[in-house]
Amino acid sequence: MSAQIDDTHDRNRRSWVESANRPGCDFPIQNLPLGAFVPPRETRARIGIAIGDSILDGSAWLPDETLNGYFALPATQRADLRRDFVKALEAGAPARDLFAQADCAMRLPAAVGDYTDFYASIHHATNVGKLFRPDNPLLPNYKHVPIAYHGRASSLVVSGTAVRRPHGQLGEGKFGPTCELDYEMEVGLFVGPGNALGDPIPVRDARAHLAGVCLVNDWSARDVQRWEYQPLGPFLAKNFATSVSPWVVTAEALAPFWTNAAPHDVPVLPYLQEPGAGALDIAVEVWLKTGTMPAPIRLSRAAFRDMYWTPGQMIAHHTSNGCALVPGDMIASGTMSGPEKENRGCLLELTAKGADPVRLPTGETRTFLEDGDEVILTGYCERAGFARIGFGQCRGTISAAR
Amino acid sequence: MSAQIDDTHDRNRRSWVESANRPGCDFPIQNLPLGAFVPPRETRARIGIAIGDSILDGSAWLPDETLNGYFALPATQRADLRRDFVKALEAGAPARDLFAQADCAMRLPAAVGDYTDFYASIHHATNVGKLFRPDNPLLPNYKHVPIAYHGRASSLVVSGTAVRRPHGQLGEGKFGPTCELDYEMEVGLFVGPGNALGDPIPVRDARAHLAGVCLVNDWSARDVQRWEYQPLGPFLAKNFATSVSPWVVTAEALAPFWTNAAPHDVPVLPYLQEPGAGALDIAVEVWLKTGTMPAPIRLSRAAFRDMYWTPGQMIAHHTSNGCALVPGDMIASGTMSGPEKENRGCLLELTAKGADPVRLPTGETRTFLEDGDEVILTGYCERAGFARIGFGQCRGTISAAR
Repeated sequence: MSAQIDDTHDRNRRSWVESANRPGCDFPIQNLPLGAFVPPRETRARIGIAIGDSILDGSAWLPDETLNGYFALPATQRADLRRDFVKALEAGAPARDLFAQADCAMRLPAAVGDYTDFYASIHHATNVGKLFRPDNPLLPNYKHVPIAYHGRASSLVVSGTAVRRPHGQLGEGKFGPTCELDYEMEVGLFVGPGNALGDPIPVRDARAHLAGVCLVNDWSARDVQRWEYQPLGPFLAKNFATSVSPWVVTAEALAPFWTNAAPHDVPVLPYLQEPGAGALDIAVEVWLKTGTMPAPIRLSRAAFRDMYWTPGQMIAHHTSNGCALVPGDMIASGTMSGPEKENRGCLLELTAKGADPVRLPTGETRTFLEDGDEVILTGYCERAGFARIGFGQCRGTISAAR
Repeated sequence: MSAQIDDTHDRNRRSWVESANRPGCDFPIQNLPLGAFVPPRETRARIGIAIGDSILDGSAWLPDETLNGYFALPATQRADLRRDFVKALEAGAPARDLFAQADCAMRLPAAVGDYTDFYASIHHATNVGKLFRPDNPLLPNYKHVPIAYHGRASSLVVSGTAVRRPHGQLGEGKFGPTCELDYEMEVGLFVGPGNALGDPIPVRDARAHLAGVCLVNDWSARDVQRWEYQPLGPFLAKNFATSVSPWVVTAEALAPFWTNAAPHDVPVLPYLQEPGAGALDIAVEVWLKTGTMPAPIRLSRAAFRDMYWTPGQMIAHHTSNGCALVPGDMIASGTMSGPEKENRGCLLELTAKGADPVRLPTGETRTFLEDGDEVILTGYCERAGFARIGFGQCRGTISAAR
């Protein structure tokens, strides 16, 4: 059973934490995302609940250092916890000690066992395909198979971690710092209870195994990727760093934001047929701040609902051969792009492989990222009649190669 | 510093465990591989040392349930432990209680954080390439880049675990049990201390980060693989099960078996240049037992020293972009094949994509594996003047699809 809309989503609820009630706040009382924070002058992480510009200590409910134990809970227990958090934080409840988000360090929300990266945006697949195969942009399997590959769990880093420009083979006989460093705007899905090896999760049950959602920047070295990726796919082009936003928006908080996926022109196999509204309506934006810019500017935005494959289809496909999903595993969507130029989720697409550089207000241009550039992902859900909820930020600044 | 040949390798040493002194035994006192075993009527795993047909309880030295803590030790401490184990087990030392291997269950030797699979056999790459691209079997990057991809850690299983025939997409509109189930004969390298994210391991230091070696069968569904692998590589074709042998032969035990790698006709980049004898001389064999055969027969054998890329080159390449290797991570070699037909490490190669079936003594033929077939990998090291050491077995039997 997946999370339902209930009175915890009532837009009229307010918190005694005043910053949570300000319009545009990412973390109102209807959101209550979870993360792993380290209080000032401490070293051990605790689970916290983001509320406005503050953090409520969640260790009385969740005494671990990561959310893996939370993700393993049945959906009914996760929903009970949400009610507890609402009770503790809503207007009228006794005030408690809070931590200021600005004073705390964040850690990765989970010890991710396995990290899978899908390729679920048909707009991205088509745009990239056009650059490399103008006559045949979309491969024949695309509309049938939710394409994915395994990423590297050990190179996941929390938002704010500097991203060092990696070395790599840039072509025959060439080794050095990548000249084509790119971001990829993605959404990350945290696996809930999961399945035993050998037991597929049917698509109708898949949503119950989605416990939370975050933002992901799957940094990519395009020159390395072009030279290494045949025949087994990307490897060192991707596994030097993947940034993850620290606050996990729970499946319960997202209940109001499910919507119909875009229709397919080619029917999918029965094991991939979604029983209902299978798409999540999350808007994601990518912002850039170079070393000379006073403030970031937005480069693009896209909608998670525009992905060709839904979260349920990803989970059903991933487990259709019996592959085990484990609580805290992360499934990223792949680069999110949409139908328009302003919806392109990476520089490779946005600049047409460098042919059409991005022009910035400072007079600078970018084909790929330069040292000192900071990339910031943001995301939010909006629906008439419901409070807006946000994902916070997923940030990373490029530092010079060793 | 990597492990050196010392008096623990003296071929004249004998154990008070008589079964360890029999000719051809995989586990003489010169070997002493480590594994995670569960004693009879218990449920918690302990670390054990294989000796002959028995297991010495190692929990006084290594109190964990997996070898991850051992792998994290500096090489000098691992060498000290080896001396302790030799002292405890050699002829003249007081006898201790042992467990019979036949009475114990084995677990995966480590909690593998990330599993990487290389493609390091040029013979395999060429054989497979010829089947799909007769004019251009070897891709242009092969002799420059040690090709690899990320596997799935959650589907690693210990030897003896049944392997259920997976379902998958077998082409457009087709979903069902794979018709082309194959094995892949591989060697697995367990990572020792590893590196922090951002700090490459130079090739001259790489061998110090190899803590132990096992056998790996990377089961593959070829029909699924053919349809899904473009453009991001294998995914569901591989992540339904990968079998791992339970006994890890330590880097210390392997010290006598380093040898020169086969020379390259194309020079490699400086970061991949091995300072000395970089290849490990391990013979690996694959045996098959169908449901009607009284005993398994050998299908092929290959030498790990024939791989195009050495363990040191794999580790140096893997970390050349700063990717973090963590104690207990597993790096598999990719299918091991050699120059002759009898050296082909999977059925795809051995049967030329099914065109030339394997004929068995029972009159049966095989193009791919059938339900009830058991595949057994064995391996050993031999060198004049040294005791033969073995790897035990990596077994798996195919069970019918759900």
